[in-house]
Amino acid sequence: MSTETVDTSFIPDLPKGPLCEYRDRAKFDWKRLRLFFEEEKVLRIKYKIWKILESDPLFAKPKQTLPTDQQKRIAAMQMNRMAHLDIAPSDVYNLSFQEKTRYLMSVNEAIHSVCPSLSVKIALGVGLFNNALLAMGTERHMKYYKAAWNREIVTALAITEVAHGSNTKCIRTTATYDPKTQEFIINTPDFEAAKCWVGNLGKTATIALTFAILYTSDGVNHGLHGFLVPIRDPQTLKPYPGVLVGDIGEKIGLNGIDNGFVMFTNYRIPRENLLNRTGDVTPDGSYVSVFTEPSKILGAALESFSAGRLGIMQESVNTLSSAAVIAVRYAALRKQFGYEMDGPEVSIIEYPLQQWRVFPYLAAACVLKISVYELTNTYLATVEKSQADSNGFEMLTQIVSEIHAVISSSKPLMTWTARDAIQEAREACGGHGYLKASNLGELRNNHDPSCTYEGDNNVLGQQASNWLLRQWEGTVESPVGTAKFIQRRDRILALNYSDIIARFPLDSMDFVIHSYEWLLCFLLKKTSSAMKHAISQGHHKFDARNNAQVYGARDLSRAYAEYYALYNYQKRVEAPNLDPKLKDILNLLFLVYAYWCLDKHMTTFYEGGFDLSLKFVKEVRARLLQKCRELKDSAVSVADAIAPPDFALNSVIGRSDGLLYQNLQMEFMTNPGALERPSWWKDVITPPKSKL
Amino acid sequence: MSTETVDTSFIPDLPKGPLCEYRDRAKFDWKRLRLFFEEEKVLRIKYKIWKILESDPLFAKPKQTLPTDQQKRIAAMQMNRMAHLDIAPSDVYNLSFQEKTRYLMSVNEAIHSVCPSLSVKIALGVGLFNNALLAMGTERHMKYYKAAWNREIVTALAITEVAHGSNTKCIRTTATYDPKTQEFIINTPDFEAAKCWVGNLGKTATIALTFAILYTSDGVNHGLHGFLVPIRDPQTLKPYPGVLVGDIGEKIGLNGIDNGFVMFTNYRIPRENLLNRTGDVTPDGSYVSVFTEPSKILGAALESFSAGRLGIMQESVNTLSSAAVIAVRYAALRKQFGYEMDGPEVSIIEYPLQQWRVFPYLAAACVLKISVYELTNTYLATVEKSQADSNGFEMLTQIVSEIHAVISSSKPLMTWTARDAIQEAREACGGHGYLKASNLGELRNNHDPSCTYEGDNNVLGQQASNWLLRQWEGTVESPVGTAKFIQRRDRILALNYSDIIARFPLDSMDFVIHSYEWLLCFLLKKTSSAMKHAISQGHHKFDARNNAQVYGARDLSRAYAEYYALYNYQKRVEAPNLDPKLKDILNLLFLVYAYWCLDKHMTTFYEGGFDLSLKFVKEVRARLLQKCRELKDSAVSVADAIAPPDFALNSVIGRSDGLLYQNLQMEFMTNPGALERPSWWKDVITPPKSKL
Repeated sequence: MSTETVDTSFIPDLPKGPLCEYRDRAKFDWKRLRLFFEEEKVLRIKYKIWKILESDPLFAKPKQTLPTDQQKRIAAMQMNRMAHLDIAPSDVYNLSFQEKTRYLMSVNEAIHSVCPSLSVKIALGVGLFNNALLAMGTERHMKYYKAAWNREIVTALAITEVAHGSNTKCIRTTATYDPKTQEFIINTPDFEAAKCWVGNLGKTATIALTFAILYTSDGVNHGLHGFLVPIRDPQTLKPYPGVLVGDIGEKIGLNGIDNGFVMFTNYRIPRENLLNRTGDVTPDGSYVSVFTEPSKILGAALESFSAGRLGIMQESVNTLSSAAVIAVRYAALRKQFGYEMDGPEVSIIEYPLQQWRVFPYLAAACVLKISVYELTNTYLATVEKSQADSNGFEMLTQIVSEIHAVISSSKPLMTWTARDAIQEAREACGGHGYLKASNLGELRNNHDPSCTYEGDNNVLGQQASNWLLRQWEGTVESPVGTAKFIQRRDRILALNYSDIIARFPLDSMDFVIHSYEWLLCFLLKKTSSAMKHAISQGHHKFDARNNAQVYGARDLSRAYAEYYALYNYQKRVEAPNLDPKLKDILNLLFLVYAYWCLDKHMTTFYEGGFDLSLKFVKEVRARLLQKCRELKDSAVSVADAIAPPDFALNSVIGRSDGLLYQNLQMEFMTNPGALERPSWWKDVITPPKSKL
Repeated sequence: MSTETVDTSFIPDLPKGPLCEYRDRAKFDWKRLRLFFEEEKVLRIKYKIWKILESDPLFAKPKQTLPTDQQKRIAAMQMNRMAHLDIAPSDVYNLSFQEKTRYLMSVNEAIHSVCPSLSVKIALGVGLFNNALLAMGTERHMKYYKAAWNREIVTALAITEVAHGSNTKCIRTTATYDPKTQEFIINTPDFEAAKCWVGNLGKTATIALTFAILYTSDGVNHGLHGFLVPIRDPQTLKPYPGVLVGDIGEKIGLNGIDNGFVMFTNYRIPRENLLNRTGDVTPDGSYVSVFTEPSKILGAALESFSAGRLGIMQESVNTLSSAAVIAVRYAALRKQFGYEMDGPEVSIIEYPLQQWRVFPYLAAACVLKISVYELTNTYLATVEKSQADSNGFEMLTQIVSEIHAVISSSKPLMTWTARDAIQEAREACGGHGYLKASNLGELRNNHDPSCTYEGDNNVLGQQASNWLLRQWEGTVESPVGTAKFIQRRDRILALNYSDIIARFPLDSMDFVIHSYEWLLCFLLKKTSSAMKHAISQGHHKFDARNNAQVYGARDLSRAYAEYYALYNYQKRVEAPNLDPKLKDILNLLFLVYAYWCLDKHMTTFYEGGFDLSLKFVKEVRARLLQKCRELKDSAVSVADAIAPPDFALNSVIGRSDGLLYQNLQMEFMTNPGALERPSWWKDVITPPKSKL
């Protein structure tokens, strides 16, 4: 992005106002920074979608929380409306897989920032359903693909059962083939095996891609398969006989989604509804494997959920950004206490404690935004390659494994960072942060399940550490390059803080990256040794692995995701042609996030003997505070560069006009019935005996 | 509590069920443990209140979130109902101050666990209002005291303004005396000075104790005073002319409270409505100071908020307990994965990672429960002493300062620990934790403002560190004994890990307490030196203090609260006559909480050079995991000992019967409209063009 070629004219200006006191101090153009974080074509898509949603009353945000039934109705209507809006030009579908998917992901990001329930409904009902259909189905199922795409059917993906979430291998729903009628008979053995938490299933889905164990009529168990199971009559939304389907009820958030449960009793579906890419049942009832290792294909189908996880990560980084933007703008505007009792008060952004609480999240939003973008590119390129190229299967398998490891560690990192940012922002905005109109409560309640769905963070993270441990214990197979450092393990572990600081200044990205490589090697060595030792002592591998999680594999997984993010960011910032005006602020953001992360790993550095001179801990902490101080005058403009429009941010205390108290006044005065006597006044007036 | 004298018969038995698998493994009687945590008389009060609330339909919990207007109506009706229930026997009011207050606090704890909004409404409208009235008013105001007590009037306490929360010195509402009519004229200069967030004010309060700057007619500013300001006609709930009062709108939680704002325009109130204990205005308009240092009395009035903070701490420990109980019971019942692919699954409580995530909160609940109880006793005894004794003013001032420091650090510790426990419990219960019926979302949203109100945690915590620094820099004045260690500072700082471990085994409470004393001295020395150095370099004291918060005063404040809690707990557990069967489990709980806390301070221990042999970090972490493992078979019974009844816990996944899936089934099937076609089905059926 060189100076000459940047067109920022399509980015709307921000209103002048009280925030300009800080905006004017920034030494860079926030629009150019915005275009560093997001490509022009991506940003144009988002602004387009935001404009569409803002101008359609169906997407207007209600001032008060609606009853959950109303929320479901509106989200379902919004989903139907999508087909009639100018979301994507028709030629999108002629683009390459990469470009098309990036287009749709950008659309999703914009939708999610306004209507998270709708975004999830689409992701489940169109994205995941169709991905699974593609991976598991064959030509005869493609009509459902198109229908879902065009929103002619409402679909659901039914995997989770009441008693089994993470452990999909224990799913107990059955599909038994009946050669007499050439049908599968679907049964739910008991409530614990009821499909559960299935999005869109509670009230609206007419068909559910359902995972069940396939039995042939001879009683042989052929393992988990996918089936297209009709649930409701599309014209009446009445469930079919044999299907007991319902809504699981109110949740902490995302109540626009009708999460449902379903139990089947001798419910018959046609033979053709088996998704038969890996195995099929002939009309007379014989099971035929299409590939020799169907589990691998099924694994590939499940792998197609990576797109879902990337979507969650993109959304989480946006949520993280929103929380940071609200907290930064509020801190610039809110004044409290000052040098003298009767003197002027100072903006709370001036307090080092406030900076330290808020700025690392602002920096995290920037670093992770770059990282998830690059990770998505790598993922999309790999999938495209796999579609084009029938050669290089082994290399592709390695790439897929590595990407899976990065995603499995990064999804927890990003969702947890967003979770913490929202809470810190809520508290950093004091009482006003507790208003529904601050939007921080909505962000928190809607973001919360991201830590659980599409792979519980604690369980998913273990897939990354397992992969890393395999690299450590065997030959390093890291075509993407995220674990190449393991090849240098001996040299890395021979280093310590003094060695690294002798080569790289503390303010350099290289210093951070080298420290991280030491940290990762130490954690790998420690975790691997602990597991090997346990096994040599006769412990079961299950116990050995479980005992190596805390202070071992768990920290490893997290550090790996941070390393990957910092490494990606470094590559981007150190690329040639970067506008030098941006480089300073981008460096500063890197260091704030990096020092903050290093500080959280400080006990591990200590435990590993990285530095017993005590300089590392003192320097990292002192520098973090210093860099926060340096960031202070740029923070508002950095926030502008990652903020969604006010319509999407939807926070009375975080608007870009900076008119904090005027906006609060409007909010207070116009909330429904604010100034009216309550309709129930007669129920609560004080008893007549009172004389006061 | 010796074996002979314990009557546990009034504690209801728990139902037999799947939880007995773990319950049967505990080596102690959970009812006896319960009576260790709470005195019999306190527990009897709570069970009585729970019974009253459970049997009155007005206190039944709705299955779905009600519209906020309905929530307000019900909470207001509940508040009126309180006067008609058999809450306290009439002779409660003849008890000593200590006994009476403890009685009312116990009532509040039970109410809060069922109806948090109601609890806060009473605390504000009766407790805080009357405390402030007592501290600032005189005989002529006592009729309001009684009326508030008997719930004949609905009151509010109006301090906070839109632009000023923590910094009450900048309040801008004015009360100007008019000798012609012998009235004060109340004015709100602009919206930023509108009283704001005032509980009970939004819809119902008829009178507000309002803080305003008193001006005499000669234009002289006499500083902040309290005034009784009529807001609404008690018979019609219509506001009086000159009073623009309204509700601030929906919040993240606690929507049963009508938080309001109010602006006054030339609103006249009688001269007698000035709370005139510290200063008065004569009918002709002269200001008369009653004491020479009215600010001190005002300080005492504000100090009366300590009771409110103690209430918040008691509630927070109960909230923390509820979150831990839900997570422990769910972990015992939920099975996922196992040793062999096709073998039985194991309860997730068996996983070390799960133990490490959940058990420290269970242990924290136990330790902090003891601590807040002891702290309350100290506080109550001090207040009673101050009422009885006119001598020993200086000693009393010291005690009050010290208690204020303990409260100022403990309120943040307890509210933050509860906050984190809820979030960890939510995630530790996976998707089912995201159901509204798990109650974790309600706990989170209702608990959240505790971190802000009655003193923002970050601001309040500084009052503790400031007090500690004064002890460090001057003569130690610690009549309660919490800072006596400072007198031994030189000896303490001369020690390190090897010295302490040579004297006390790692599993001993003394080891922990001595490590904490080192930590506190190190942080005091570091923070004090940093501030002195900054001032010697010409920095303003305001900057010096602000720059010493992160990694200094902030950690100090937290460590001090933990030290106080652990120290109190140790005293209780090491008291003679303790049932030896309980001693083991109580020791174990101490160590789990203590190691977990020490681990969080590990970087500071490292930075301070406490142990460069690396043994301390390795031992603390290894022991924490080991103690969690030891706690595993007792955890369910410990949870039973701190759990409220199922009615109050209100969690479908945390019930004491352990019938996890049966309860979920009932919940799913009976949530309103669960199995019905939505009324809005015609709005969302797929377009007729669909053929599927």
